[in-house]
Amino acid sequence: MKVIQSSKNPVVKQWKKLLTKKGREESHTYIVEGFHLVEEALKQQDTVIELIFIEGTDLPGKWNLDGVDLIQVSEDAGKALADTETTQGVFAVCRQKDASDINGKKFLLLDGLQDPGNIGTIIRTAEASGIDGIILGKGTVDPYNPKVLRSAQGSHFHVPIIRGELAEIISVLKEKGIPVYGTALEGGEEYTSIKPRDSYALIVGNEGNGMSPDTLSQTDQNLYIPIYGKSESLNVAIAAGILLYYFKNGQ
Amino acid sequence: MKVIQSSKNPVVKQWKKLLTKKGREESHTYIVEGFHLVEEALKQQDTVIELIFIEGTDLPGKWNLDGVDLIQVSEDAGKALADTETTQGVFAVCRQKDASDINGKKFLLLDGLQDPGNIGTIIRTAEASGIDGIILGKGTVDPYNPKVLRSAQGSHFHVPIIRGELAEIISVLKEKGIPVYGTALEGGEEYTSIKPRDSYALIVGNEGNGMSPDTLSQTDQNLYIPIYGKSESLNVAIAAGILLYYFKNGQ
Repeated sequence: MKVIQSSKNPVVKQWKKLLTKKGREESHTYIVEGFHLVEEALKQQDTVIELIFIEGTDLPGKWNLDGVDLIQVSEDAGKALADTETTQGVFAVCRQKDASDINGKKFLLLDGLQDPGNIGTIIRTAEASGIDGIILGKGTVDPYNPKVLRSAQGSHFHVPIIRGELAEIISVLKEKGIPVYGTALEGGEEYTSIKPRDSYALIVGNEGNGMSPDTLSQTDQNLYIPIYGKSESLNVAIAAGILLYYFKNGQ
Repeated sequence: MKVIQSSKNPVVKQWKKLLTKKGREESHTYIVEGFHLVEEALKQQDTVIELIFIEGTDLPGKWNLDGVDLIQVSEDAGKALADTETTQGVFAVCRQKDASDINGKKFLLLDGLQDPGNIGTIIRTAEASGIDGIILGKGTVDPYNPKVLRSAQGSHFHVPIIRGELAEIISVLKEKGIPVYGTALEGGEEYTSIKPRDSYALIVGNEGNGMSPDTLSQTDQNLYIPIYGKSESLNVAIAAGILLYYFKNGQ
């Protein structure tokens, strides 16, 4: 076990970079905070690199720390890493998944989503629906943003999430014979016109503007969810939930 | 048009009571803020009682203000009513709907929900799915709370929303031959075991604890949504969206 006494220690400085998108992208790692998320991370193989705890924090005896660097830090060093106001004093530095982690035949693609809470809820819902991988296009908020991590409640550890160029990903999916469905408020077909299937890629778009016209033009088919009342639209996370469970259990 | 020059005016004091749950319940009115919500409110008959605007605010010429009391207020009086940091300077005092406004055969009941964002999203989704009325049990946050109003994006004006004693409401629904479905994480049947129907009452429960055991025991049948991944649960607004659209478009 290492011990770090000061928030000025260069190691702490490195960790603090993980609170920024740039720092996470450069190191291909991210940091999670709190007992629930750290415990979920530890359950996964090859995920946690370092476990950091503020001196005096009790670590559950059941945690398997084999192969994990254990680092005790002073309170001020720990607080420097915290994204929450009252930190639980425990953090894990985790490895990001990459394209080689993605296998399967059910995918969700996010095109330009901006709200971390929406993205976290969508990740949680997609994982619950049994999706094999989630790919975020360039305009979408970083999935390893602390707010996204909190709102996904640990689903990051149960489904591969990567960033990518949607146009390239869509080409690869099509080559593999996986049908690619976009979503649009107007145009396209009612979602119930397609049959549930065990192979698909679903794309949902930006909260205000929907999918980009470019991405929409590359899909096999675009779907919409009818509005039977007077609302102008559904929340994008709700729409994703309806479609993912429809694809699964269908009509 | 009346003019009010000071935030100390007793009328302003009355309006400010509408920022509290007690004040809204006693007066059976509520207040909405911003051009979008005020415009949606004005489109409904017998809804807007007073339209309040800060001096210098331009009101759209297309607004139909027949039968609406128009009141210009000073900037400090307007700011005293604002729930947002940068107010658009326009407010409407609206009449709450009551049980006599509820007709139809598709209802959503909320049992103990606490998060205003969730409740607003659920109201918006339920209205979009074509529900006829929403009934909030006593433990649920006030639907006329400003955060709920904002997140429902005007759906309050398109579907009757009332507060009530769920046990009584369930009895009335059953007498009318409307099947009452509860939701539970454990127990009950998979939602796809029932057929879509045009007559139902669906109940969703508290974010952490689900429906109360009392309410669960009064339903005709309790349903759950299977989790195919490793998530422990779905967000309650997502679950409501999946079920409401399943009931509508089904299997």
